[in-house]
Amino acid sequence: MNREIPYKIYLEESEMPKQWYNVRADMKNKPAPILNPATLKPITVEELSPIFCTELAKQELDETTPYFDIPEEIREFYKMYRPAPLVRAYCLEKKLGTPAHIYYKFEGNNISGSHKLNSAIAQAYYAKKQGLKGVTTETGAGQWGTALSMACSYFDLDCQVYMVKVSYEQKPFRREVMRTYGAQVTPSPSMKTEVGRKINAEFPGTTGSLGCAISEAVEAATTQEGYRYVLGSVLSQVLIHQTVIGLETKAALDKYGIKADTIIGCAGGGSNLGGLISPFAGEILRGEADYEIIAVEPASCPSLTRGRYAYDYCDTGKICPLAKMYTLGSGFIPSANHAGGLRYHGMSSIVSQLYDDGIITARSVEQTEVFKAAEMFARVEGILPAPESSHAIKVAIDEALKCKETGEEKNIVFGLTGTGYFDMVAYQKYNDGEMTDYIPTDEELAKSFATLPKVD
Amino acid sequence: MNREIPYKIYLEESEMPKQWYNVRADMKNKPAPILNPATLKPITVEELSPIFCTELAKQELDETTPYFDIPEEIREFYKMYRPAPLVRAYCLEKKLGTPAHIYYKFEGNNISGSHKLNSAIAQAYYAKKQGLKGVTTETGAGQWGTALSMACSYFDLDCQVYMVKVSYEQKPFRREVMRTYGAQVTPSPSMKTEVGRKINAEFPGTTGSLGCAISEAVEAATTQEGYRYVLGSVLSQVLIHQTVIGLETKAALDKYGIKADTIIGCAGGGSNLGGLISPFAGEILRGEADYEIIAVEPASCPSLTRGRYAYDYCDTGKICPLAKMYTLGSGFIPSANHAGGLRYHGMSSIVSQLYDDGIITARSVEQTEVFKAAEMFARVEGILPAPESSHAIKVAIDEALKCKETGEEKNIVFGLTGTGYFDMVAYQKYNDGEMTDYIPTDEELAKSFATLPKVD
Repeated sequence: MNREIPYKIYLEESEMPKQWYNVRADMKNKPAPILNPATLKPITVEELSPIFCTELAKQELDETTPYFDIPEEIREFYKMYRPAPLVRAYCLEKKLGTPAHIYYKFEGNNISGSHKLNSAIAQAYYAKKQGLKGVTTETGAGQWGTALSMACSYFDLDCQVYMVKVSYEQKPFRREVMRTYGAQVTPSPSMKTEVGRKINAEFPGTTGSLGCAISEAVEAATTQEGYRYVLGSVLSQVLIHQTVIGLETKAALDKYGIKADTIIGCAGGGSNLGGLISPFAGEILRGEADYEIIAVEPASCPSLTRGRYAYDYCDTGKICPLAKMYTLGSGFIPSANHAGGLRYHGMSSIVSQLYDDGIITARSVEQTEVFKAAEMFARVEGILPAPESSHAIKVAIDEALKCKETGEEKNIVFGLTGTGYFDMVAYQKYNDGEMTDYIPTDEELAKSFATLPKVD
Repeated sequence: MNREIPYKIYLEESEMPKQWYNVRADMKNKPAPILNPATLKPITVEELSPIFCTELAKQELDETTPYFDIPEEIREFYKMYRPAPLVRAYCLEKKLGTPAHIYYKFEGNNISGSHKLNSAIAQAYYAKKQGLKGVTTETGAGQWGTALSMACSYFDLDCQVYMVKVSYEQKPFRREVMRTYGAQVTPSPSMKTEVGRKINAEFPGTTGSLGCAISEAVEAATTQEGYRYVLGSVLSQVLIHQTVIGLETKAALDKYGIKADTIIGCAGGGSNLGGLISPFAGEILRGEADYEIIAVEPASCPSLTRGRYAYDYCDTGKICPLAKMYTLGSGFIPSANHAGGLRYHGMSSIVSQLYDDGIITARSVEQTEVFKAAEMFARVEGILPAPESSHAIKVAIDEALKCKETGEEKNIVFGLTGTGYFDMVAYQKYNDGEMTDYIPTDEELAKSFATLPKVD
């Protein structure tokens, strides 16, 4: 076979992005400003600076600068594991018998096993540059904590990770990877912080949530000298760093003259999705092109498809700034049978605004269907996907099967954010036929919506 | 920084090898023939065929054909995860402060996590082509079993894996990956086979060995209709398939005009090492170039550095053909504290002969030193290496530090065969300071040498 498009498109180092893209600069309707929880007024860089590194606080609030230079140290680090390949899923296409052309941007080819490293290294870099001793963070599925541990080890920063208890227990080996990279890992809610003790008292036996781990990490950052808090998703700064995914994807497609029709990403906090789609959304916003963009979320944590677009706390402890976003309420905790990440109650304010403006669409899927898609993908494409990424696989397969019916040769591009090496407990459940689905009832959502703050 | 040599050298698909190389064709001293265990005479393709696929039996015994065409179906599969990058270890060089240039061929960028897939897909292909129902095999650290499961799933073959009991227990998640790819996994020694029952009776509570799992898998293959046995290392056929590593490495070095000085690989059964070094050894054998080649083995299983060059059984159950090789005796079982693979009692007959002829050298290293090197490598290069691969890292670091003393700008190339995602029990031991070393005493080796057969 002599194919024009190889299985894997790798950019040259010289073709790698030198700037991150800030899609807000092209948005007519900007995301609503994030609010200081004490004053409920738009927060300033000064007010954010006790929590975040100053440079990151600036990126967080900057709605007008379209591009940020990627510092050379970060570009050098990127070269260790990037460019990530854009893979043509020839074998999946054949298996499905679809005329569609399926591409996936594979971000799992680094040891943290996911795209999270793209922002971890940026945040560690700015922390180091500011002369900090260390950073604190939360991690859910463990991908972010692993990535941050790697990044901190590279820049010789202390790294304290609060890991959602259910993941800590389901993924003991994640902890050891983080420890190998020198991080301290604490199951959350812990007894180490005031907010952790309070949550443990209020909800005895809770398996934790991202929102709660965030509260603990923020408290730990603000009560230790020389520490700041870093976050793996949700924030605009993270989404900006993750645009390296979308920019590389676009460059690879352009290199081969491929025009994407449908772009699909899984959505938890929204940063990988936002990073993947930003350059494409920018073209839509500027009226240069049209794409169908689909955000895929778990039916068990459906912030876009069933949430409210409202101001909410980013964390359960309500000590973080408030953001206007699609949210289930900061009191929402996904049911314990939910495997893997994508368990955050809210959604990136940028993604939320793009969704509200109809630039992107959203779909929710149930986890047994997701694992079925994951297994099929693994068997033909040779990559064992993370449960999170498999949400995108599921919808990519659905879309490719629609093309089979209509005969359309659509170009479907999806983000394969990571590998499932540390998700074998969930795979085992699936293999044993013991995986279950859970869709929160309207009553349950009403209860968590009741935790929404009243903000005009 | 504007560097001539990128962090990662990727060949184009069109530059990938189209043939495997059979170094025996260039060896003046051929490896001694493998013997039929019943007659102790050189075995024939016909006699091997009840155990191996016929095409593989032919490759096994062919000492004169220098190149074998890689079938197109296998080349297509290779494109899913190959070419593997040749990485310039800029960060490790900087950390060590060495003038040496360090390169590693990274074979861990596929879901089986190692180079094993290179031969697994070839063996599955020939089995399918022969119209078989399935294959049986053994696995130690689990890399081979995972790779074979993937390959069998791709060609829709049944896959039965006997997994060394100690690894089965240390690596529960490995089993789930194999199951996800549809394989049956049995801890060895089991009660399913005659030889397994015999070994369990003779050595109650044994944690198993590769030699013993091989016996079980061979028995399972020969007692089921439509099954053959496949092996992940040791055999010449496997070494031939693994030359794709060395051929790509050589092509990548040539592309950038780099002449290797020192080539380092870890050695268990010898297939990854043999595959990496074959093209270089071929040049030495043909008098075209000179290289220092170093095989690195664990001090706890030192077949090259302390073994005897003699005919031995390839398996504990003594039902496989005999090979002349460096061996500790088929009764040798590494101490239980030994982590990961590289636990085979013998060594590829090709590697053994090259070693005996002085074409390659060998060195043994202790595991705490190996994990120390692994941790340093992980922290600067961002890849958490498999314990097996870390043996090569350890010696590459040693060699680079020698260059620091002498000021030599040597080009050091080593094989990074895989990732350590499933070795976190061992990493945890190291992180907790509980890892120990073990070097077998002369008395212990004398005891296992006593299991060597008497063959003239």
